[in-house]
Amino acid sequence: MVLRMPTIIVEGPPIGIETKRRLVERLTRAASEEYGISSITVLIKENAAENVGIDGALLHDKRRKKK
Amino acid sequence: MVLRMPTIIVEGPPIGIETKRRLVERLTRAASEEYGISSITVLIKENAAENVGIDGALLHDKRRKKK
Amino acid sequence: MVLRMPTIIVEGPPIGIETKRRLVERLTRAASEEYGISSITVLIKENAAENVGIDGALLHDKRRKKK
Amino acid sequence: MVLRMPTIIVEGPPIGIETKRRLVERLTRAASEEYGISSITVLIKENAAENVGIDGALLHDKRRKKK
Amino acid sequence: MVLRMPTIIVEGPPIGIETKRRLVERLTRAASEEYGISSITVLIKENAAENVGIDGALLHDKRRKKK
Amino acid sequence: MVLRMPTIIVEGPPIGIETKRRLVERLTRAASEEYGISSITVLIKENAAENVGIDGALLHDKRRKKK
Repeated sequence: MVLRMPTIIVEGPPIGIETKRRLVERLTRAASEEYGISSITVLIKENAAENVGIDGALLHDKRRKKK
Repeated sequence: MVLRMPTIIVEGPPIGIETKRRLVERLTRAASEEYGISSITVLIKENAAENVGIDGALLHDKRRKKK
Repeated sequence: MVLRMPTIIVEGPPIGIETKRRLVERLTRAASEEYGISSITVLIKENAAENVGIDGALLHDKRRKKK
Repeated sequence: MVLRMPTIIVEGPPIGIETKRRLVERLTRAASEEYGISSITVLIKENAAENVGIDGALLHDKRRKKK
Repeated sequence: MVLRMPTIIVEGPPIGIETKRRLVERLTRAASEEYGISSITVLIKENAAENVGIDGALLHDKRRKKK
Repeated sequence: MVLRMPTIIVEGPPIGIETKRRLVERLTRAASEEYGISSITVLIKENAAENVGIDGALLHDKRRKKK
């Protein structure tokens, strides 16, 4: 019987599918080895810059000022 | 005074509105009866196959291999 | 190959193990049938009344006033 | 050394960018002052009305009935 | 009919009940006014310093070094 | 200006502090390199076996049967 459980939720910016592939592969390997459980689920959440607040301002606005 | 609280977050694949209706109805009935609280909020999260990792690979890639 | 994914996170008050058993059994059956996926993970989160705010006041304080 | 941590996740309906700006600004100020930590991340999650269940029915359906 | 929904989840360090009271009161007022919805649920999550990683190290270890 | 954001939430079983150290270190390195962002927050959530449901049964009960 496989006792599954670990789920990793990643809240980050939008990324390409190649990055998703590597991210899932690496996060899973790390969690799998540290927990000693082979079965890991990863959920990648992509947050638009206007939905993220950093220290009180939208990431969307911080990026514009930076230019 | 109603003391609300239970919130159910469901992380799954994209589904149609009819399925959402039934899912919300059933999850709410179950939680409502078990908690003894009539007021339940359900949040359905739809995850694209390229944002889900299962045991180290994207669900998106697993599905393609399966064909 | 099993394509697992749905994870249900339930944020509610503390409950007994018998309630947890039934809650998991019922939520899983509902989600499993609606998604057409047999493999479902449920995470029960128990929130102390002093960690829950309802409409601006702690649930802990609302309960005391109610008596 | 800055010891960052507090993250605020807001699950609500879709809103405009001006509302997001004020929401992030106000939630951050409140959390920052109460925790005594200047560095706060806010994630705004916008949920379509057909992905939200309130007391057993989709918010999407409740709104239609209301008209 | 009240159309409830916004839920705010706050991931932070352990805090006292007085701080929780003010935090809930302030976060709720901000969200309530910005969303135009009076009914808001707040869930305060208290994370022990050994369960938080900041830039690759446990907050627990960072604090010890700081002394 | 540092544009922080990625937060990784890990829902797993209880683990020792040494495992937490390595887990945080490895997850952060992976996410940091893939996102190209040095600043990553990890939140480790430890779930008791009686709060986890796997395919309809509590993990707590599955483990007892296994013996």
